[in-house]
Amino acid sequence: MRESLADLGRGALVLAACSGGADSLALAAALGFVAPRAGLRAGLLTVDHGLQEGSRERAARVAALAPGLGLDVAEVLAVTVGTAGGPEAAAREARYAALGEAADRLGAAAVLLGHTRDDQAETVLLGLARGSGPRSLSGMAPVAGRYRRPFLDLPRSTTVAACRALGLDPWDDPHNDDPRFTRVRVRRRVLPVLEEELGPGVAEALARTARLAREDADALDGWAESAYRNCALSDIPEKVTLSVRELEGLPDAVRRRVLRRAAVAAGAPSGALSAAHVLAVDRLVTHWRGQKAVDLPGGLSALRRYGTLILAISPIA
Amino acid sequence: MRESLADLGRGALVLAACSGGADSLALAAALGFVAPRAGLRAGLLTVDHGLQEGSRERAARVAALAPGLGLDVAEVLAVTVGTAGGPEAAAREARYAALGEAADRLGAAAVLLGHTRDDQAETVLLGLARGSGPRSLSGMAPVAGRYRRPFLDLPRSTTVAACRALGLDPWDDPHNDDPRFTRVRVRRRVLPVLEEELGPGVAEALARTARLAREDADALDGWAESAYRNCALSDIPEKVTLSVRELEGLPDAVRRRVLRRAAVAAGAPSGALSAAHVLAVDRLVTHWRGQKAVDLPGGLSALRRYGTLILAISPIA
Repeated sequence: MRESLADLGRGALVLAACSGGADSLALAAALGFVAPRAGLRAGLLTVDHGLQEGSRERAARVAALAPGLGLDVAEVLAVTVGTAGGPEAAAREARYAALGEAADRLGAAAVLLGHTRDDQAETVLLGLARGSGPRSLSGMAPVAGRYRRPFLDLPRSTTVAACRALGLDPWDDPHNDDPRFTRVRVRRRVLPVLEEELGPGVAEALARTARLAREDADALDGWAESAYRNCALSDIPEKVTLSVRELEGLPDAVRRRVLRRAAVAAGAPSGALSAAHVLAVDRLVTHWRGQKAVDLPGGLSALRRYGTLILAISPIA
Repeated sequence: MRESLADLGRGALVLAACSGGADSLALAAALGFVAPRAGLRAGLLTVDHGLQEGSRERAARVAALAPGLGLDVAEVLAVTVGTAGGPEAAAREARYAALGEAADRLGAAAVLLGHTRDDQAETVLLGLARGSGPRSLSGMAPVAGRYRRPFLDLPRSTTVAACRALGLDPWDDPHNDDPRFTRVRVRRRVLPVLEEELGPGVAEALARTARLAREDADALDGWAESAYRNCALSDIPEKVTLSVRELEGLPDAVRRRVLRRAAVAAGAPSGALSAAHVLAVDRLVTHWRGQKAVDLPGGLSALRRYGTLILAISPIA
């Protein structure tokens, strides 16, 4: 916690997002202990999703813990959860919108999230099952904008032990045991089998993989960004033209990132652009035998003409 | 199989390594079918590890299948398996030494291995459990020197079906069911649970991850190699000197690879050099507060002096 806040100036306000579960309760307690000693102001936000019976009373009880934890600010944020993208995604979206709004209103420099190494391991396994490569293995970021995750290297057992040691009574969200959620099945079924068959320390290995994959993906994205600028002969909206000769000089991993980047710049919706799409465009560069244009999401086509690759809203004029 | 052999010149000799199991039996059959049509000569190598009762007779039976599969060459390679590194590693080492020797002697252009997508998925999971990052997730290479794995994108069920369709009777190696081997537990226990909880297609997703991780690792290794040459002020044996200013300009993922590369160039045994070692050296660059030298395996020290980082056999003169 101390390391995680070391860069903040004196008097800055830091808020812990706290559901009342063991992870975020330990987070709020650690913040309440560290903040005054670091010259920071500290508070707690708790979100009432309004999805479970008694959620309002529970949120009020969490907020009421703040003074005892050494936190000066405490707010209950009542949200309305929509349905878009499924129940988990909708709840997350509503929660982050409310946290962001409250952080703005209160002038917070940072909002802390209680995710632990076990959450990170689950996220890596979920990314692995998607098979969309190193970026999906890189899990949650330790720092993302104003959000920080000080406990991302700690096992969940530490937060549970901390609550016990501090006499705090964490709330067990019944959603955390509902096997309809993939994440719950990963936690209850997949990780225990991995630990049993591959040895203890799997969660730690997965979290380490996430850190290394994130570093690699960051470096390659940076490389691809500058390579894109070298390759792009023009990138007016809806039409990006790339130099085939520049593309040919790049390693596979970078060239495919440049092509994805170009397709998105030309207007392809990022989420709809699959690895198979990018590979088909790549073959216009690496396996050129005069093939026809490749159709891409968003009404886009990719076409090789003379020494250039053109990604544009079809038909290409 | 056709694609995998497309770059070989007419008359080249290709050998399939064949244990008699479904994967390598289907491999030998596919080679026997494709090779004559592609103007290639083809044969089969089978290794008698001498570890199981009747292994000699079994190897002879596998070799005897060659003519019926359309293969002109067939050899039984009898090896003596040592003990170094455990039974699996010792058997593998003896096997590859024998295959390499036979390929040299027979003048083979390529040796084919029967690993399937399922083997690749198992390898990725084993790498994941080690947590040593994207390189350990990149699994087995489709091509490594003269070895090729034409079936690396095919499910094992396809090789089993091919054997059935061809009237071939594969041998079931009892080692493939022995739960003392981690790989067997991954196959029998871990992958089925992953498929059950995360949905079918997990093996395919893991194989896709391997391909993407390999591309990324190749690109970053290439970057690190040229960055190392930029950073190295001198790299005489046992003493490598790097420019701190050049190191500071690199992304984390590249800088850490350069530091690992430098430590190995200075004489650290690659296998003994952990991520923690590299991170400690990295802090001499990124978190410099006058700390003392970092001890590394192989009697090496890393030390920052003025604007340079020195990796050398200690004591540094």
